[in-house]
Amino acid sequence: MPGSRRSDAAPQKKTGSKRVNRASPLASNRKISRKTEGVQAAILETAAQIFARKGYYLTKLSDISDELGMHVTALRYHFTTKDVIAAEIVNRVIRTNLDSLCQTLEDLGPETSSRDKIAAAIQTYMRVSAANKAGIAAHGNIVNQLPVEVKDEHYELLHEFLDIWRDLVSEAAARGELRPGLSPSIATQVILGTVIWSREWYRPEIGTPDNIAAEMTRMLFGGLMTDEPSPARKPGPARD
Amino acid sequence: MPGSRRSDAAPQKKTGSKRVNRASPLASNRKISRKTEGVQAAILETAAQIFARKGYYLTKLSDISDELGMHVTALRYHFTTKDVIAAEIVNRVIRTNLDSLCQTLEDLGPETSSRDKIAAAIQTYMRVSAANKAGIAAHGNIVNQLPVEVKDEHYELLHEFLDIWRDLVSEAAARGELRPGLSPSIATQVILGTVIWSREWYRPEIGTPDNIAAEMTRMLFGGLMTDEPSPARKPGPARD
Repeated sequence: MPGSRRSDAAPQKKTGSKRVNRASPLASNRKISRKTEGVQAAILETAAQIFARKGYYLTKLSDISDELGMHVTALRYHFTTKDVIAAEIVNRVIRTNLDSLCQTLEDLGPETSSRDKIAAAIQTYMRVSAANKAGIAAHGNIVNQLPVEVKDEHYELLHEFLDIWRDLVSEAAARGELRPGLSPSIATQVILGTVIWSREWYRPEIGTPDNIAAEMTRMLFGGLMTDEPSPARKPGPARD
Repeated sequence: MPGSRRSDAAPQKKTGSKRVNRASPLASNRKISRKTEGVQAAILETAAQIFARKGYYLTKLSDISDELGMHVTALRYHFTTKDVIAAEIVNRVIRTNLDSLCQTLEDLGPETSSRDKIAAAIQTYMRVSAANKAGIAAHGNIVNQLPVEVKDEHYELLHEFLDIWRDLVSEAAARGELRPGLSPSIATQVILGTVIWSREWYRPEIGTPDNIAAEMTRMLFGGLMTDEPSPARKPGPARD
């Protein structure tokens, strides 16, 4: 797959984090304190919940500060505009997924079977998603509404993430682990569709992220259906 | 699955169409002329393209009328507000899918194997989607931004559609066509995730809707991976 990055490459330094605190006193090289980190995390979590509920256009900075019981000026100290917060939320969703996936693959090592790598990638995705429900809901709700420059930067990050999945499936095909005759590129989309769609239905009551990931993997790897169609089994009375 | 509707039930009369022309001279029982239908279809197609590009909040009725070279008053004659157009676009996407799926299942008859029914459902979904790219892109982009009463009505329709898929997979499980031990409810989501995610990547250059549907079905039914993990095959030089 030309132009795609290697799945076993070390995670690159991510773009995007420069957008936080751009115009605040923290924008220089000063170390961000633990307290500031905590405040910013709380702002992002609350903002994500509001974005998920109201969408991009209807959300105002003051909605976020009101919800946090903080003055909007204090909020602006950390994030100058709504765009900066929105960018940070959507990029963080992908960055967290990307970092976790790279870490998982690094831990497994390049010689691990593709089956095990893809299974671990699915498990990592489900764990990260379960830990960031608000961010993921906000992501789905605002990503298309973002200003074009935020969107462009975000899509770069997203493609970096998707390329790793593509590489994993291509590697499976090259090693003979993908069933012969299947398109690696469509197989990648079937796996991605399965994990990404979980944002619409996954709730902790259904199962732990690990259990759901294991079930998805069983289905995707081995298939949903029994081997033979069962033409003999008919519902209702037999016809003759 | 308690409360879900039967997949072999005849398509119900759909909600939602009453929203078109609500306040126009066509709102009464007068038959809508073929010409009016054509104008309305053109309005919806253009509106869908603009919604897909600009999202819900930034789209104005005048953007749509300008693009069509028609006066905004003429547009209002057919659709009184942006909400009415948006509702019609998102509901039409699901209604078309729902009607086509019911028709497909009716043509097959209830005794057809679940494999064949689900394969046909996937094919129908891909055909309908390929024929309505603008509507589907608009749907994804505006559905979360819709006013709450439009959204509620839309979700009712959506659940009706999703319930049919759920019933198909439950039937497969009851007939022993689903691989033993798999969760019918997660299997439903794996299939739905696979077909719905296609809106993010499907382009006609990749293949016909029928070819893509056949490939998805092969993958979903029989699985992506070869039966045995191949622990012997290692990339690069063997370690010892």
